[in-house]
Amino acid sequence: MKMIQIILFFLALISYTSNAIDSDDFCVADLSFPDTPSGYPCKSENNVTADDFVFSGLNIAANTSTNSFKVAFTTVKVDKIPGLNGLGISVARIDLGFNGSVPMHTHPGVGEFIIVIQGQMTAGFITPKKVFMKTLNPGDVWVFPTGLLHFILNTGPGNAVAYSAYASSNFNTHLTDFLLFGNNLSTSTVQKTTFVDPAQIMKLKVNFGGSG
Amino acid sequence: MKMIQIILFFLALISYTSNAIDSDDFCVADLSFPDTPSGYPCKSENNVTADDFVFSGLNIAANTSTNSFKVAFTTVKVDKIPGLNGLGISVARIDLGFNGSVPMHTHPGVGEFIIVIQGQMTAGFITPKKVFMKTLNPGDVWVFPTGLLHFILNTGPGNAVAYSAYASSNFNTHLTDFLLFGNNLSTSTVQKTTFVDPAQIMKLKVNFGGSG
Amino acid sequence: MKMIQIILFFLALISYTSNAIDSDDFCVADLSFPDTPSGYPCKSENNVTADDFVFSGLNIAANTSTNSFKVAFTTVKVDKIPGLNGLGISVARIDLGFNGSVPMHTHPGVGEFIIVIQGQMTAGFITPKKVFMKTLNPGDVWVFPTGLLHFILNTGPGNAVAYSAYASSNFNTHLTDFLLFGNNLSTSTVQKTTFVDPAQIMKLKVNFGGSG
Amino acid sequence: MKMIQIILFFLALISYTSNAIDSDDFCVADLSFPDTPSGYPCKSENNVTADDFVFSGLNIAANTSTNSFKVAFTTVKVDKIPGLNGLGISVARIDLGFNGSVPMHTHPGVGEFIIVIQGQMTAGFITPKKVFMKTLNPGDVWVFPTGLLHFILNTGPGNAVAYSAYASSNFNTHLTDFLLFGNNLSTSTVQKTTFVDPAQIMKLKVNFGGSG
Amino acid sequence: MKMIQIILFFLALISYTSNAIDSDDFCVADLSFPDTPSGYPCKSENNVTADDFVFSGLNIAANTSTNSFKVAFTTVKVDKIPGLNGLGISVARIDLGFNGSVPMHTHPGVGEFIIVIQGQMTAGFITPKKVFMKTLNPGDVWVFPTGLLHFILNTGPGNAVAYSAYASSNFNTHLTDFLLFGNNLSTSTVQKTTFVDPAQIMKLKVNFGGSG
Amino acid sequence: MKMIQIILFFLALISYTSNAIDSDDFCVADLSFPDTPSGYPCKSENNVTADDFVFSGLNIAANTSTNSFKVAFTTVKVDKIPGLNGLGISVARIDLGFNGSVPMHTHPGVGEFIIVIQGQMTAGFITPKKVFMKTLNPGDVWVFPTGLLHFILNTGPGNAVAYSAYASSNFNTHLTDFLLFGNNLSTSTVQKTTFVDPAQIMKLKVNFGGSG
Repeated sequence: MKMIQIILFFLALISYTSNAIDSDDFCVADLSFPDTPSGYPCKSENNVTADDFVFSGLNIAANTSTNSFKVAFTTVKVDKIPGLNGLGISVARIDLGFNGSVPMHTHPGVGEFIIVIQGQMTAGFITPKKVFMKTLNPGDVWVFPTGLLHFILNTGPGNAVAYSAYASSNFNTHLTDFLLFGNNLSTSTVQKTTFVDPAQIMKLKVNFGGSG
Repeated sequence: MKMIQIILFFLALISYTSNAIDSDDFCVADLSFPDTPSGYPCKSENNVTADDFVFSGLNIAANTSTNSFKVAFTTVKVDKIPGLNGLGISVARIDLGFNGSVPMHTHPGVGEFIIVIQGQMTAGFITPKKVFMKTLNPGDVWVFPTGLLHFILNTGPGNAVAYSAYASSNFNTHLTDFLLFGNNLSTSTVQKTTFVDPAQIMKLKVNFGGSG
Repeated sequence: MKMIQIILFFLALISYTSNAIDSDDFCVADLSFPDTPSGYPCKSENNVTADDFVFSGLNIAANTSTNSFKVAFTTVKVDKIPGLNGLGISVARIDLGFNGSVPMHTHPGVGEFIIVIQGQMTAGFITPKKVFMKTLNPGDVWVFPTGLLHFILNTGPGNAVAYSAYASSNFNTHLTDFLLFGNNLSTSTVQKTTFVDPAQIMKLKVNFGGSG
Repeated sequence: MKMIQIILFFLALISYTSNAIDSDDFCVADLSFPDTPSGYPCKSENNVTADDFVFSGLNIAANTSTNSFKVAFTTVKVDKIPGLNGLGISVARIDLGFNGSVPMHTHPGVGEFIIVIQGQMTAGFITPKKVFMKTLNPGDVWVFPTGLLHFILNTGPGNAVAYSAYASSNFNTHLTDFLLFGNNLSTSTVQKTTFVDPAQIMKLKVNFGGSG
Repeated sequence: MKMIQIILFFLALISYTSNAIDSDDFCVADLSFPDTPSGYPCKSENNVTADDFVFSGLNIAANTSTNSFKVAFTTVKVDKIPGLNGLGISVARIDLGFNGSVPMHTHPGVGEFIIVIQGQMTAGFITPKKVFMKTLNPGDVWVFPTGLLHFILNTGPGNAVAYSAYASSNFNTHLTDFLLFGNNLSTSTVQKTTFVDPAQIMKLKVNFGGSG
Repeated sequence: MKMIQIILFFLALISYTSNAIDSDDFCVADLSFPDTPSGYPCKSENNVTADDFVFSGLNIAANTSTNSFKVAFTTVKVDKIPGLNGLGISVARIDLGFNGSVPMHTHPGVGEFIIVIQGQMTAGFITPKKVFMKTLNPGDVWVFPTGLLHFILNTGPGNAVAYSAYASSNFNTHLTDFLLFGNNLSTSTVQKTTFVDPAQIMKLKVNFGGSG
């Protein structure tokens, strides 16, 4: 009799958690569907495994010698961890070679912080009124407010490494140089909207792959 | 050698922006999919063109002589500009003939402002405590708070025109007259819930296409 | 002539409400599509009927004698009323037998209130600093803040009934006992992360259907 | 030695929960401060008690004989339960006398559901395309989507009672009659924006306390 | 007797709208309080007037001859219309002299559309993958997605004018030139993070008021 | 003459960025004001410095020997970095001694990810249907969905360290043990709502500082 009660004990209670539809404990991205303004449609809960919540390799230093800024990014967004979908957070690793820098850029609509892991960095962001800048060492956390233009300089004697976290599951990075000089926007238009000299524009277009 | 560095320069950096999934620089509506509470699923980025962000013709005066209110609306929502999807804004043009008016209405859940372009208008909205009303001339901006009942009168000597903007990519317009008198809701029910006299209800049902 | 004007009256105005796309007066869930972080895709407006907004039977007492807590839940979420989709609210009925209790649980990310309908209940929630608790009688409303651990005791002389409302269209219920003792998480892991004694863990695993 | 460990056991762990600032387990409204778009500023956590989360008396039938609609509302919003602040939910009791009705109204920007407790009701809401209406009995739940014009009729043989829940901590109720006929908006303006006849407007202005 | 009923009629109903606290029909900014992440605290409802919802003068052409871009902005945000607070929309007027341009800029976290009123404009925004650009004439509407770098050129034979609307009550404008060359950020840092040549940087610093 | 144009150049443009009110480039918390549901009121922009965006010391190993779980947390929320206000992200460092564990806990309403920096960890979270668990090594990222019960075990041969990021500027941590056994909730109530044996409850109350 005690036995019967015990069996009923969990059978009756468990029933209210088993709906015909999936629970909303999480909404793991089904990347085969198109995205929506709030994130990807959810993978069927039966197909979700622990692998949907994990990514490996952020401890590996990326090669910073393949570009002139001596910088490398390793981004971990919803495409790498489908379980980030709808949570509004993601992560990246930033490697800076000696004397390297993270070029001027924005993450449209997204706030960010970095934790310095190795080396010395000088991080800054810019508003129309002021530059906010700080020299950072390992263990330092620095915040870049939503959508502001920002940069990092390696101001230490060797390589520098930071982890960065973002207030979005699917942030983008917009490097000012690539926006201005990495496409077919005409030199004349860039000149008219920035007052950068045509010769300088053409020189940078060569560097950043732009034409026109 | 300089050449090689330059080539690597943009190749290495550009790579981190090319994910397997689309970027989230925008989420242009794919109107062939069903809507969601946050907006339409996104069109594949490869199919997005400048045409997804443009609409033409808001300078054209609409015909205000086809109805007794002498009013015409031209609305530009996500169905006309798929690039508005998820941005939470949209636009319309309001034409008012001489002595015309925008009937009492609400936009459920959506705030609005208008800019007067031509003529003179008197705009107002109503709360349970008070009527907020103002006579407006060209260049005047007026705000209608979220979801409140509001109206506009043409109080000038000729036609009047305004542009209106909405805090939604897909707002709706609910004219009180059509809600009360433009459907099959019985005269008895309208009478019981508004205390409008049956004769008046039946008269307005004829005007606004209602039955019952 | 008056006749013509009247006909035009509603024809011209009604036109601006008939878009190629559905209105956004509501987004009734099409449960055959996968969920998204903002809710289910919308059913085509042509297929929406009054039945999408109604549920019957919340006046029926559920059987509380099938489990040791003497509790029964009847939940009405978006799966039962597709019209709740995107509205951020839902409802449940809670039945408590004599001396019964709602076990310790959370609704992740969701706030709740209850209205006591019958009997006497003692409701409480717990923060790291304090227990907030109150004895409630019919007509009393009690709030459980977002995501906090909470419980209800039947402290009256007979059965007790409450209606509960939730700040989500698709809330979940996480009973602490089922999370800790109703799955295959090893006794050793539970012991290390709760300091509950192994014997107690194994006893509760039997009750709540866990293994390992 | 075991003793020392035990004492350290909770001392060390508890410390990380005691910040200089209040926790964010809840944000109970301090109604002495002005409201903000996201809700009231939070009362200091030290002053929060269980009384901030409770309200009594929703079981008491309100007097429906003092007005012609034979309706009475008892609303429980953040002003009655400060603990509802920021949670996005609130509650009310609706009493309807025999043959009574809840007049046509909206809750701007807020979705709602009702649970019928006693009697028979016919509830409906109206979109520009259609009336959605249903006869409801005790235990029935009915949804009114965000901001739509709606009404309830007592269609049973006696009094009727429902509890209603709202997707806001501080919803408002806008009765169409009071908006149109309960203020100093001129008869001429109401006529021009609704096409209700002047005589009818003046009659309703008397009933609903309007002037002009 | 009829008289008594009529008086009770509105007295009883009106009472439920008069709370001790302000209604939430709107939250007009009290600019004397500090801002919050959701907007300004609300002005007491008793002090709100129609003037809180209006701004005049957007029809007046601003002087575009005072700067080399030949551009002038007139912005109407929550500081000019306190009633925009919390609504998530605002407006501006853009004047462009012959051959003028709106310099490259972003509105961090904010989407925008423009309506061309006069003249011909070429508007564009830039993503890491592509430039989206269109020539616009009066009555054309163009969308700039959230936070993207964008610009406008006057490509017509005379002055050009547009109204712009923003998905925020308090948007900011970040001109790339002022961010890079209008402050004390050292030439060396700008050079390292943009690869613009030092001579060019120093020249632009003179133009945009920067030092260092 | 060129000189005059250059001077006007930046004077005229800069003017439109200097409003009477603060910009909304950021909303740095003024912790002297009470919190609101959307975060703290903003410090006056004139008083904001780079120090508002930085925190130092997250590289320092915390002492894990002061408690039986051998765990230490160092949290960096809006109280430590006021510039995190309104951004919806924050960070912590987790130190685990040999054989240590992060006890079962939730962060109400907040999603989280961790990056393993040192050692080996086994992380898991629990839904009513399943345990999701993974062994993690340095460079591994793991996600804990919003509000779910979770834990970490040090399963490596030495100390283990991780950084964690949260989808909130002001998250809380609710350890199940402290909620159940660290306050004055009576043994009888805990027993009734968890079915843990009274002897076990009393033993844990001693460990976690509870009474009653």
